[in-house]
Amino acid sequence: METRRLDVRRFDPAKLQKLNLFQTPRFFCDVYCLSPGQAQRPHRHQASDKVYAVLEGEVVVQVGAERRTLVAGDAVLAPAGVEHGVENPGPGPAALLVFMAPSP
Amino acid sequence: METRRLDVRRFDPAKLQKLNLFQTPRFFCDVYCLSPGQAQRPHRHQASDKVYAVLEGEVVVQVGAERRTLVAGDAVLAPAGVEHGVENPGPGPAALLVFMAPSP
Repeated sequence: METRRLDVRRFDPAKLQKLNLFQTPRFFCDVYCLSPGQAQRPHRHQASDKVYAVLEGEVVVQVGAERRTLVAGDAVLAPAGVEHGVENPGPGPAALLVFMAPSP
Repeated sequence: METRRLDVRRFDPAKLQKLNLFQTPRFFCDVYCLSPGQAQRPHRHQASDKVYAVLEGEVVVQVGAERRTLVAGDAVLAPAGVEHGVENPGPGPAALLVFMAPSP
């Protein structure tokens, strides 16, 4: 049994870091680490659903036309076909647990 | 945008409680709340992968023939076809974030 930790972190001033916890043909599970000012730009997946769950810090999530500030413990669904993205406005670091099914 | 909280909890002395956060045809995401002594008995899904991530407390997870104690922040994959289960040996409450893809 291979276990992973939700508190794994790696921050890089160059860009958002994606740390994979698990990947199968059916889904992936990553921890995204965002330094202040970093973002995952809005995009969409035609056939995959995604969940963003905030593990640490505060982020601004966009799903469709709506943008909202989420804090640690908040989670949101970005359904297939819907534009979504996330940014860390700062000043602290932020980390997200991200599930996407199926893997794109 | 509908948000959910990872710290949602509901405990019932009668049985393990499953609180659904999100469900789509592609996956579900639940919070399982286990009082001391409660368990999800070992079972398997032929075509779905599951992740157990411990949000609170301490549990004994079985994946295949292996059993291991996991604590808050630990996560483990139960791949399709592999027997898996979880129990809370006590003495405290336990909560798990559970993802399964696809929804069975």
